[in-house]
Amino acid sequence: MKVTPWEVSGDIDYEKLIKEFGTEKITDKLLSRIKKHTGELHPYLRRKIVFSHRDLNWVLDEYEKGNKFFLYTGRSPSGPVHIGHLTTWMFTKWLQDKFDVDLWFQFPDEEKFLFKEKLTFEDTANYLKENMLDVIALGFNPKKTKFLIDTKHAGLMYKEACRIAKKITFSTVKAAFGFDNSYNIGQIFYTAMQAVPAILPSAMAGKNIPCLIPYAIDQDPHFRVARDALPKIGYYKPAAIHSVFLPPLTGPGGKMSSSEANAAVCTTDSPEEVRRKVMKYAFSGGRETVEEHRKKGGNPDVDVSYQWLTFFEENDTKLKKIYEDYKSGKMLTGELKQILVDKLNIFLANHQKEREKAVKKVDKYVLKL
Amino acid sequence: MKVTPWEVSGDIDYEKLIKEFGTEKITDKLLSRIKKHTGELHPYLRRKIVFSHRDLNWVLDEYEKGNKFFLYTGRSPSGPVHIGHLTTWMFTKWLQDKFDVDLWFQFPDEEKFLFKEKLTFEDTANYLKENMLDVIALGFNPKKTKFLIDTKHAGLMYKEACRIAKKITFSTVKAAFGFDNSYNIGQIFYTAMQAVPAILPSAMAGKNIPCLIPYAIDQDPHFRVARDALPKIGYYKPAAIHSVFLPPLTGPGGKMSSSEANAAVCTTDSPEEVRRKVMKYAFSGGRETVEEHRKKGGNPDVDVSYQWLTFFEENDTKLKKIYEDYKSGKMLTGELKQILVDKLNIFLANHQKEREKAVKKVDKYVLKL
Repeated sequence: MKVTPWEVSGDIDYEKLIKEFGTEKITDKLLSRIKKHTGELHPYLRRKIVFSHRDLNWVLDEYEKGNKFFLYTGRSPSGPVHIGHLTTWMFTKWLQDKFDVDLWFQFPDEEKFLFKEKLTFEDTANYLKENMLDVIALGFNPKKTKFLIDTKHAGLMYKEACRIAKKITFSTVKAAFGFDNSYNIGQIFYTAMQAVPAILPSAMAGKNIPCLIPYAIDQDPHFRVARDALPKIGYYKPAAIHSVFLPPLTGPGGKMSSSEANAAVCTTDSPEEVRRKVMKYAFSGGRETVEEHRKKGGNPDVDVSYQWLTFFEENDTKLKKIYEDYKSGKMLTGELKQILVDKLNIFLANHQKEREKAVKKVDKYVLKL
Repeated sequence: MKVTPWEVSGDIDYEKLIKEFGTEKITDKLLSRIKKHTGELHPYLRRKIVFSHRDLNWVLDEYEKGNKFFLYTGRSPSGPVHIGHLTTWMFTKWLQDKFDVDLWFQFPDEEKFLFKEKLTFEDTANYLKENMLDVIALGFNPKKTKFLIDTKHAGLMYKEACRIAKKITFSTVKAAFGFDNSYNIGQIFYTAMQAVPAILPSAMAGKNIPCLIPYAIDQDPHFRVARDALPKIGYYKPAAIHSVFLPPLTGPGGKMSSSEANAAVCTTDSPEEVRRKVMKYAFSGGRETVEEHRKKGGNPDVDVSYQWLTFFEENDTKLKKIYEDYKSGKMLTGELKQILVDKLNIFLANHQKEREKAVKKVDKYVLKL
């Protein structure tokens, strides 16, 4: 198992990650506390897809005292958005709506430029344009959502990044990210830029505002470094809430990546592409023959189509029935895949419609200079 | 002898620096070539105060082909400006006027913030305001001079800095600046920001424009790194022209620093302060007694007052007479100091008048966002 901001591979043991990263498990008690404010629990919370946190109790303490937090998440534009990215943002939108809070959405368009030899700023500019549409299509409240684009907003961000950078040594990033002397000086500096949105609203408001960052757990090293540095310049440690990865289509291990075309469903895939990918590549928990499957049943716990449905089928009863029918052998792999294909295609038809409408909405989201 | 961008100490052997840094001496042949274009030679060129260069012949080749260069120099605002700073800028202005070229003047207001534990951005903002007045007071053509302030213009600069940073590893800055793992990640990144003005006019114009950087030789490590990196992203190597340091008042070694109040004359010093500092602290090449001085003569080659006059007395004949009279013992140390005090006070009276007028001119110089 390897989990860094730039590589996720192997069988992910989330219990082990909690221990290694030093985060806290989201307990049933904490879920009840959230529910007091939200009225209901998002399926990802009920299903422990959102499974770990840092300082979420403190964020709720402050919230209950009338000291609202803001949300911060982001997307490094280096390829098309796939449905795995969307899941974190859908949960973020739920938090925004339920707690009625601001969201700062960072597009660190220099990150992957610095980390990928061949990626140019022309590439990242194109992906940025496309990726923003996917975020907007999810329906974030434009009055409470601000897009921060690193190269565009550096006039606001660089000074804050320097304040943070002054408190982070090369030893620290070496230990946190496994860098050695062959890394470029932009890569070394970058984590300071990723920390900026956690303090920028406070810096601009001239007062300390709690920050809650929903992210997939591979980004945790950045925020561990940020949590050490930010109190040294007078800010709160940002709190965090972590989700598991949507597994790649081709297997239960690792994290979905747009660069492996057959392992990911992208937001602009056509219904036929979705069908082809799921039918051909979705790692199956089924048996070798229909007869054996009917007799012994399938294994939904390793079946990627089923795993994906836990992210996209909101109805617990329906999901439970699928689980049981597949496990008993009543439901065949082809049928299970068909359910997923239909679910994804309904979801994507709507997303793509909203994505087209988003073209005209970009200016409402990008922070005014 | 130690010469780095952050420390200059010991007896400076400029011949040795040329060898160590791998620069070229400015020959009489090159002086003639410059004179063809400028009509006359600046005293600093005649006197070898400006003594070394990189690629100046290439810059003149391009200039003669009609491909004008631009000038780039700068000031890190971390204290008051002293007259040592002014000398480099006065020579820069001469180059600007004689060659009729643009000047990009960088104020890297994050540099010393990152390098000095206790310096805050509030401090640098104050020094920036003051330091800009000193630059403007020298009379740079506002139509051809652009001030670039790192934290203010990061929206323009950071993206270019990332392009440069991608080509510079930690190994490189470690070797160039002597950094180790305890340096902060802002310090490590900084050299990329210092390289930006060397390419920004080219990036903005969409074509490659030669760049000539006049600077005191201690800044050379930054530009050595830049000269390696910039061709890798399609730009010319910046050319350079180097001056010696105005020695500190208190002794012939090292470099003048505003933080040693008695060793520097600042641009806002009153006539009385100038007199007090020169009379009390100027390192003298005179003899112990008047009698001995009259008999054996003084040593103008180590006398700081005389050294300073080589920077401020433009008339070669007058300067020569002072040299000879002091050397023969005809001129006493007190008389030599008096000449310097008068010279500096006339210079500073005019500078301070222009500095006051500069308050209203700042907007004409700062690059529009």
